[in-house]
Amino acid sequence: MRKQSNKTNADNAIEVIRGGVTAASGFHAAGIKAGIKASKNADLALIYSENPACGAGTFTTNAIRASSVDWCESILPGAAVHAVICNSGCANACTGDQGVKDTAVMASLTASALGTAPKSVLVASTGVIGKPLPMTRIAVAVPKLVASLSPTGGTDFAKAIMTTDLVKKESAVRVSSGRKHFVIGGAVKGSGMIQPNMATMLCFITTDAAIESPLLNDIVKRVVNRTFNNLTVDGDTSTNDMVLVLANGVSGTSVKTKASQKAFEEGLLTVCNDLCKQIAADGEGATKRVEVTVKGAKTEEDARLAAKAVANSNLTKCALFGNDPNWGRIACAVGYSGAKFSKQKMSIELCGIQVFKNLQPVAFDQKKAHTLMKKKVVNIDINLGLGDKEAVAHTCDFSYDYVKINAEYRT
Amino acid sequence: MRKQSNKTNADNAIEVIRGGVTAASGFHAAGIKAGIKASKNADLALIYSENPACGAGTFTTNAIRASSVDWCESILPGAAVHAVICNSGCANACTGDQGVKDTAVMASLTASALGTAPKSVLVASTGVIGKPLPMTRIAVAVPKLVASLSPTGGTDFAKAIMTTDLVKKESAVRVSSGRKHFVIGGAVKGSGMIQPNMATMLCFITTDAAIESPLLNDIVKRVVNRTFNNLTVDGDTSTNDMVLVLANGVSGTSVKTKASQKAFEEGLLTVCNDLCKQIAADGEGATKRVEVTVKGAKTEEDARLAAKAVANSNLTKCALFGNDPNWGRIACAVGYSGAKFSKQKMSIELCGIQVFKNLQPVAFDQKKAHTLMKKKVVNIDINLGLGDKEAVAHTCDFSYDYVKINAEYRT
Repeated sequence: MRKQSNKTNADNAIEVIRGGVTAASGFHAAGIKAGIKASKNADLALIYSENPACGAGTFTTNAIRASSVDWCESILPGAAVHAVICNSGCANACTGDQGVKDTAVMASLTASALGTAPKSVLVASTGVIGKPLPMTRIAVAVPKLVASLSPTGGTDFAKAIMTTDLVKKESAVRVSSGRKHFVIGGAVKGSGMIQPNMATMLCFITTDAAIESPLLNDIVKRVVNRTFNNLTVDGDTSTNDMVLVLANGVSGTSVKTKASQKAFEEGLLTVCNDLCKQIAADGEGATKRVEVTVKGAKTEEDARLAAKAVANSNLTKCALFGNDPNWGRIACAVGYSGAKFSKQKMSIELCGIQVFKNLQPVAFDQKKAHTLMKKKVVNIDINLGLGDKEAVAHTCDFSYDYVKINAEYRT
Repeated sequence: MRKQSNKTNADNAIEVIRGGVTAASGFHAAGIKAGIKASKNADLALIYSENPACGAGTFTTNAIRASSVDWCESILPGAAVHAVICNSGCANACTGDQGVKDTAVMASLTASALGTAPKSVLVASTGVIGKPLPMTRIAVAVPKLVASLSPTGGTDFAKAIMTTDLVKKESAVRVSSGRKHFVIGGAVKGSGMIQPNMATMLCFITTDAAIESPLLNDIVKRVVNRTFNNLTVDGDTSTNDMVLVLANGVSGTSVKTKASQKAFEEGLLTVCNDLCKQIAADGEGATKRVEVTVKGAKTEEDARLAAKAVANSNLTKCALFGNDPNWGRIACAVGYSGAKFSKQKMSIELCGIQVFKNLQPVAFDQKKAHTLMKKKVVNIDINLGLGDKEAVAHTCDFSYDYVKINAEYRT
């Protein structure tokens, strides 16, 4: 996605820049080792804005949710957010009343070290389900974490939220709206237990745009629905998913006019799309990233249904791992997706090669397809032949290593 | 399931017996090598009843279906079925007009060799999607197939319908209803692309009971909904699924009274349940069979939703492969299943050990659980704490070999 600039209209431009949650002005971040993970990797992370930020979020639809999700949802959307603390290595989910208390204590510890109110601190957790948080270690670590805050700490933050992720995931853009500009940057973690539904993995986005929280909330929901909600690694929706977006207004650029709203939404979409691709590429055991584009749908929901069914098909994903142009499994998944399509006009392309049309096989060069499928990014393009709506789903292939990682996760 | 006898009430008894589609009187079967499979294994199979049989079926809900499914659905329920021909190695799905013609020709070839009408012959296909049937080989093989028919040919039939199955799958019961009796026997194939939905893998059941097709149809739908529709190996619903049941009346026992209907339904349930377990145990790459029982549900649909979500969770199934008592993933799947449950009363048992209650972890012997999980059958018992409805889902664990089989399927 590293194109340099993306003109959205005569006055707006989106430029991809380096960085993550500290790319926007006025945000500090840190990530340190608190001893929560057995691996001794960094496991406690913090974002801080001295200016009170407007915040919005989307949250997991899983009926069994971590108390951190409830905590954040009780605060957002809101106009007085100062910080987000996130630990990795322990999800603090299915931990009963103790878990609820521990989340509140994490917020209080952070608030007192920062000199703010507990309800201005958002809390996120990720890792093993059903294990209590090691609160003594966290209490010892929080003052050190606050002392480590830095305007260039975004990458430390992105590293400290990782669990089975192999690489940190950050993305940022500078959006110019007329003569003014602002920055949107984010970090995300996620590799397995990924099938967000009106929510996603842990994703943290900051912006120095000035935007009020109800408007921010509307835009975040729309963008998440077009990005993270179409991402899947294994079809399992986590107990801890959330996307948090903080806007501190430090750039002095207000998002109020239709044109600036459009620019903000496109900027956020660019960042979220890029983070989705980074998660898919780093899916547990993934050897390649897969982008399923469905066009020609009667409704956007039909396009989404078809794209997600293909992206979730274990059989299709095993074939992708084996570089096998087995389009039959793709057609089969479209068939059971529930999406409306034209049997006469439906067609499938794999790596740009047409492999299926009119419910009949198309003669194609199997060897060439096999070779093209070895690339790091494989595109599956499906036309449902009924309309002009479209959707994209992001996923990865399904390898031995997915099984290995998840058979041995707690050993 | 090999218990000897199962009293259903004072007058009815169900006895498990050996055999499959030829266990019931008046059915002949055969299975031979026609050269459809590259492996040179048997790949063409036939069931024949001289008496016209009443037939009923359930069919895949996949919008992309093989022409054989359409062919059978146009005939069933019906009262004049004489034969079922089934090939393995080629699904004849996504093969367009040629596929439709080939299905009709398979029926005609079989009918003329048997001296019956084409519309008295049901057709089934299973194997690779998108490849045309080798009709010349089939035309040569059909007369040989008919010449091989035998009243003890059930096992040859069961072997010839296999694809990635490692073992043949048969089941039969003798049902006594008062002084009269009849036999129900069946064979099934299926190992991957298994998430039947109002239908199932290829399953063929014969009975010598006399039962009219509308009644037979009602009972088959109810039983399939309680058995095959709760079975999953990988969440992929096939293009070719069907359950076909033929009743030829040769036993002279009529199924008309309430008591005999109940006996018939329980007998059919016993056979279908046993075949489900055999498919789960032989799931692609499976090292163990897993039975997910959900009780305490408000509705049977809630119980089914929860059981199927757990049975379909890739993460849970990888943990089962690793013998890891990771109940957090089970709780997580119940949470996203959509089933209603009581957060206070919900509980989970793994191999008979309580591991979760009141949304809190329960202290349990992890080593003992790990050892128990190495058995060939693992039970997961969930109580939703809301009512008295229940459902059982059948599945298997998820291993390296599932990925291997499906990455290399066509190579």
